[in-house]
Amino acid sequence: MDIAHGFLIIAVIILGARLFGEVGARFGVPTVIGEIVAGLVLGPSLLGWVEPDATLQFLAQGGIIMLLFEVGMDTDIHHMAKTGLKPFIVANAGVAWPLLLGFLVSYYVLGMDLLPSLFIGGTLTATSIGITVRVLSELRQRHTHEAQIVIGAAVIDDVLGVLVLAFLYHFAESGEMSWLGTAQIALYVFLFMLLAPVFSKLISFIIDRFERHSASPGFLLTLAVGHLLLMSYLAHLIGAPEILGAFAAGLAMGQHFRLHVPEGFAGVPFRSGINQIMDANPSMAGRLADQVKPLIHTFAPIFFVMVGVSMNLREIDWHSLFVWQMSGLLLLVSFVGKFLSGFAVREKRLGQVAIGLAMIPRGEVGLIFAQLGFSQHIISSTVYAALILVIMFSTLAPPFLLKAFYSRYGSRLHPAEELP
Amino acid sequence: MDIAHGFLIIAVIILGARLFGEVGARFGVPTVIGEIVAGLVLGPSLLGWVEPDATLQFLAQGGIIMLLFEVGMDTDIHHMAKTGLKPFIVANAGVAWPLLLGFLVSYYVLGMDLLPSLFIGGTLTATSIGITVRVLSELRQRHTHEAQIVIGAAVIDDVLGVLVLAFLYHFAESGEMSWLGTAQIALYVFLFMLLAPVFSKLISFIIDRFERHSASPGFLLTLAVGHLLLMSYLAHLIGAPEILGAFAAGLAMGQHFRLHVPEGFAGVPFRSGINQIMDANPSMAGRLADQVKPLIHTFAPIFFVMVGVSMNLREIDWHSLFVWQMSGLLLLVSFVGKFLSGFAVREKRLGQVAIGLAMIPRGEVGLIFAQLGFSQHIISSTVYAALILVIMFSTLAPPFLLKAFYSRYGSRLHPAEELP
Repeated sequence: MDIAHGFLIIAVIILGARLFGEVGARFGVPTVIGEIVAGLVLGPSLLGWVEPDATLQFLAQGGIIMLLFEVGMDTDIHHMAKTGLKPFIVANAGVAWPLLLGFLVSYYVLGMDLLPSLFIGGTLTATSIGITVRVLSELRQRHTHEAQIVIGAAVIDDVLGVLVLAFLYHFAESGEMSWLGTAQIALYVFLFMLLAPVFSKLISFIIDRFERHSASPGFLLTLAVGHLLLMSYLAHLIGAPEILGAFAAGLAMGQHFRLHVPEGFAGVPFRSGINQIMDANPSMAGRLADQVKPLIHTFAPIFFVMVGVSMNLREIDWHSLFVWQMSGLLLLVSFVGKFLSGFAVREKRLGQVAIGLAMIPRGEVGLIFAQLGFSQHIISSTVYAALILVIMFSTLAPPFLLKAFYSRYGSRLHPAEELP
Repeated sequence: MDIAHGFLIIAVIILGARLFGEVGARFGVPTVIGEIVAGLVLGPSLLGWVEPDATLQFLAQGGIIMLLFEVGMDTDIHHMAKTGLKPFIVANAGVAWPLLLGFLVSYYVLGMDLLPSLFIGGTLTATSIGITVRVLSELRQRHTHEAQIVIGAAVIDDVLGVLVLAFLYHFAESGEMSWLGTAQIALYVFLFMLLAPVFSKLISFIIDRFERHSASPGFLLTLAVGHLLLMSYLAHLIGAPEILGAFAAGLAMGQHFRLHVPEGFAGVPFRSGINQIMDANPSMAGRLADQVKPLIHTFAPIFFVMVGVSMNLREIDWHSLFVWQMSGLLLLVSFVGKFLSGFAVREKRLGQVAIGLAMIPRGEVGLIFAQLGFSQHIISSTVYAALILVIMFSTLAPPFLLKAFYSRYGSRLHPAEELP
């Protein structure tokens, strides 16, 4: 792809996303769906103007990590902490149910082999946090109690998805179940989730100290972006998804984040120094949030369009009865499996429904699973086609369901005085 | 380059640019030089951490077109119009002198063949508008009379450079001098420079009209970025450099741009409608300028670092006397040739010196010339190495000269009451 042609393609993606998003919004369609549909239209499914090229995938991933950085900045960790272990429970249920049901249906009902059945189960585990967050924001529900649970769960869910993928991939390669290797990655990820925000907070303190001495504009933004990219790389290095690093960096740079040594630990050395460094810095957070927005407005749509571009509907044999049966069954499994995750925690019934619905969107991670399985000859082209259909419907339908749910039950779930 | 590794590389580029820029600034070095030096250090010349990869080149070019968009927005066309034909004269002199002198020295003094001699002359013609603009901004001289001339000249200069390159490339391929083809491109470019701002102004009027009905944030920015990318592509399509399209788009979206049908043409149909559409819109321009800045802060440094990365000093045989002689001679030619361009227009003597100095920086376009000549076997690796040395010195030295000049003579050139 030469450079000028690349400019044209990105212009087409950005303007296409905007066009479909805005036109869709007139008809009550969530804008994120408009952007994915723009990808289906512009991509190989229909017009074939945009191909899943390496530079575009890179920009798309840049968009999603910046979006997750913003989600992190916008997350009140103390508010989320009140949800306790609920995000963790929802995430585990949301991975376990689809994996188990997907496996059982593939192995026993569809009569497939062990490894492909496991892979199909794995494809159904991932929640697309990008889509979920966009829809919750659009519905102005991003700061509700159940949204806190869902966002936490979706981040953890992505980590679990990567663990499952690493496990299955190793199994496919060597024929051995590597429990130890998986446990090791899980340990690294756990440590990363503990240390990354503390480290990021320290970096953000240093940035704040040096900013006033800066010789040229853009100091805060470029250092924050550099840090965000480094954390995404580190997350990848230890075997976690990049978005985990971006989320951790954002969490620490948000206006709510502070880590005070509790009163009871008066003997801790440098206690007041630590408290000063780890104190909230809403002024810097506010400026950074303003400066990050233009980057997100520009790059996040590229991500959602590329989700649509990556789903090549031409690879589906629409006349095959087996494809329809299989995708119908798996779609049912993928909806029911994720929906059940909402009921794994003790909440009001409506809150459980909201959580269950918000966990359904699939998107990019499911596609990565399916593509890997296909390229490694673990699943056939027929199964791959069926999975693309499943992912497409479980990406496109939930935003509508969520929107319908909140417009009907939102006021009962959150009586006016409760709304943030 | 996998995606996580790409994040790491870009983090290294952004943070390296900032580090070298800030540290350099402590010692009075223009930040843009710090960024180019960061590229020399990180690139194959020294550490070899950053290679000139396709995605990085793409992001770098994205950075330079956004910078030129901002330069366009910041340019008062009515102020620039007062400089009349001066930018055009300076640009022509700034291309003609280095081309002629470079050719004569190569052909007669160094005894080279016709085509390589022409190519060497061509390599010396291009002014790096990016570097010039950055230095003038840093010295707070971007809005002075001579800066208006230099910015206009540097944009025209880039067009002339592309024309020379197209001409020489065609000559190298076919052995024929294609005057007609070159004249045709020149005509297209001329028409583009007339029509592109008018078209962009119309688009910006439409954006303004639709913005209030937008369903999601970022409408203005994403449409402006999409338009800027399209204009860059169109410029490339007609044979002009991409930055010309970006500059034209920025010019029309800046707060000063308006195109009123003059009073004398009262009979023109739709006169008041045209005047309304083509009226200045400072409120929208102001908001857009704020939102474009974060993109520029993030991407422009990638461009300047990649200029440094592209100059591989390891390709130079430092022990070859011929390389030193040749580059010394050509360096002299490249300085004198561009410097003379300042004296092609009637200005105060100090103004002529300022213009001459500001026209010297080379950078990326010279590199493209040299790389093309080398890859087409028109120039030898020795000549290529000498050209890289010439480009390096004529990129790194002028910012210092300009800074020294303005700190010594700036107050005489612009007595306090004249300063904008």
